[in-house]
Amino acid sequence: MIQNDLPIRHEKIRARLRRENIDAALLSTNVNLLYACGEIISGYVYLPVEGQPIAFVRRGTTSFANRFSIRKPEEIRDVLEEQNIPLPGTLLVEGGEISHSEWLRYEKIFNPAQLIDGTTLLRQIRAVKTDYEVEQIARSARRQSADYVQFPSLYRDGMTDHEITVEMERLIRLNGNLGLFRIFGSSMEAFFGSVLAGDNAGAPSPYDFALGGKGLHSSIPLGHNGTKLTEGMSIMIDFAGNYSGYLSDLSRTFSIGKLSDKAYYAHRTAIDIMHTLAEMGKPGVRCEDLYLKSLEMAQAAGLADCFMGKAQQAKFVGHGVGLVINELPVLAMKTKDVLEENMVIALEPKFIIDGVGAVGLEDTFVVRKNGMEQLTKVEENMIDLTK
Amino acid sequence: MIQNDLPIRHEKIRARLRRENIDAALLSTNVNLLYACGEIISGYVYLPVEGQPIAFVRRGTTSFANRFSIRKPEEIRDVLEEQNIPLPGTLLVEGGEISHSEWLRYEKIFNPAQLIDGTTLLRQIRAVKTDYEVEQIARSARRQSADYVQFPSLYRDGMTDHEITVEMERLIRLNGNLGLFRIFGSSMEAFFGSVLAGDNAGAPSPYDFALGGKGLHSSIPLGHNGTKLTEGMSIMIDFAGNYSGYLSDLSRTFSIGKLSDKAYYAHRTAIDIMHTLAEMGKPGVRCEDLYLKSLEMAQAAGLADCFMGKAQQAKFVGHGVGLVINELPVLAMKTKDVLEENMVIALEPKFIIDGVGAVGLEDTFVVRKNGMEQLTKVEENMIDLTK
Repeated sequence: MIQNDLPIRHEKIRARLRRENIDAALLSTNVNLLYACGEIISGYVYLPVEGQPIAFVRRGTTSFANRFSIRKPEEIRDVLEEQNIPLPGTLLVEGGEISHSEWLRYEKIFNPAQLIDGTTLLRQIRAVKTDYEVEQIARSARRQSADYVQFPSLYRDGMTDHEITVEMERLIRLNGNLGLFRIFGSSMEAFFGSVLAGDNAGAPSPYDFALGGKGLHSSIPLGHNGTKLTEGMSIMIDFAGNYSGYLSDLSRTFSIGKLSDKAYYAHRTAIDIMHTLAEMGKPGVRCEDLYLKSLEMAQAAGLADCFMGKAQQAKFVGHGVGLVINELPVLAMKTKDVLEENMVIALEPKFIIDGVGAVGLEDTFVVRKNGMEQLTKVEENMIDLTK
Repeated sequence: MIQNDLPIRHEKIRARLRRENIDAALLSTNVNLLYACGEIISGYVYLPVEGQPIAFVRRGTTSFANRFSIRKPEEIRDVLEEQNIPLPGTLLVEGGEISHSEWLRYEKIFNPAQLIDGTTLLRQIRAVKTDYEVEQIARSARRQSADYVQFPSLYRDGMTDHEITVEMERLIRLNGNLGLFRIFGSSMEAFFGSVLAGDNAGAPSPYDFALGGKGLHSSIPLGHNGTKLTEGMSIMIDFAGNYSGYLSDLSRTFSIGKLSDKAYYAHRTAIDIMHTLAEMGKPGVRCEDLYLKSLEMAQAAGLADCFMGKAQQAKFVGHGVGLVINELPVLAMKTKDVLEENMVIALEPKFIIDGVGAVGLEDTFVVRKNGMEQLTKVEENMIDLTK
């Protein structure tokens, strides 16, 4: 039950505050409010290093036990003083996310407290899931896997990538997908999912997803672009499984008829890479080493030039998943992150094959004591949609 | 053509920079990049008060003429120096949107320049559309109006609000809606649209939309909640029309069978309010006066207690529309904004009727010299879906 999980999360935050000598945290972004309250509220959560967290609510309701109604954040200080709760000397706020003007406002409210940017710290805390959170993601993964099994039934000869995308969107919405998925950072945007057919899969995008695609319009340059599905083309489906706010991430490649030998070879290589990384992935393993292993295997297969893109190659092979689609850690170069038990990681080795499209796959795993447990489970080989 | 429109937008920004004595603007949020480039780029636009704007691109391509490739924003200064472009003494950045850590980074890069928070200024510029932008919104409005005409054909006896929502989503996606719509500010979130059936329409939401709804899950508390559509219930449909990044906003109320007399009375009152405001709405008219007029009319009709919500009442009756669904101005109390020619405004008088649901409507208008021209046009009276 989520009500039993919230105190565990609060204590995880308190433990980090203690370690960093910070007196309290003020959370105000939707993702961290969802993390701390188990629901979206309009307002703030104030979490002192000693004592209970308090929800300050501007609008709407909350089931959060310890709460006060306010109209503006200035009243938070008044409430703390009335309640004889000591004002913080150091206060963690989400400096990597809140706007500069919000930062200045909090600085004034809590003057003379020193504000500390806690965005990365909170992302690190969220990277290691509680058992309840793992179970939520595992449920999303099971439901999402069941969605993908139904996709081949939606194919009709002569469809465009847009038409099959819309039918998939309908199906997963009817199955209960909440639609919206959250992304850390303001520069990446997406609607629901990414479907890449044929050479559009290799089209560079300004967004930092594993693969790009031209998109339907320059105002949202990502994903499908109206390509007609024809013989010899691959189609890679990458949606987020959002059934409770907790996301799973799953990609599968389908074929329109028979593809080139190189496409099947690259797809098998991707499956190999994914399972090799999953076996390596134990607590204490460096994320950089997992990425280097994937590069090494792509190179050994003679496919380094089309690994994770071609005209533009993504520089990672996996990433954390949770309340946002791009939680920490990232499996990339130049990160010091190591795997920890209960991290949830999407592994997504993918290749671009000229004249065919994208091949490869993505599954969501949880890091257990002895290795990575696969949470999304669907046929990994390419299914021919025309059969 | 958009290429002819961009210089007009750049000159609008320059004119404001001149007025405020600011040397240059550095744009980095997707909405302002889309405004300045006509497309999403990964990077920045630097616009000096004298001289041409420059795109600094990190990843992907751009059709923007004057561009440099960079890996990080620190290189912007190097390029300016190499190109003998004077460094700014005052630099406008999006302080209400970029994170505090980004602000600090820009402060360091452009040291000793003084940074100026230009978020509101840029929103004010975007509030008054160019003729090209008005035409883009008018096109979205025509396409969106055509979508709404098709909605009654999707109704089947025994449907839930979720089932009919998914069929509407499918229809408008097939018709070319890009799906994603952008919202100013990080606290409001939505997936695609809001469909409110029966008493769920009055459920408070933490988000600041005109009406709320409980939503399917506490992680995205907005819109439909799984209500079964039954006789005597209203269903209000509110999607964004996104066909080019430029949005139109349109709400219509449908009935399941016959509703109470009060519901029809309130719906007619809403239609009256909307057209009265549209007639009043000329350049120079105060936005506050339009809001007060709507309150006065709701009160005169004896419906003040259920105007724009019941348990929780929204304190506005309209808002700007453009690249985001909540552009300036807002038709509310305590704003000094006045209408200007080429502002695009959604008027949305709505009522909550206990035991029935939401009634009322929303249309998108452009402010012309002599009044507001209606861009979205569909039957305004309630259509009975069971007929």
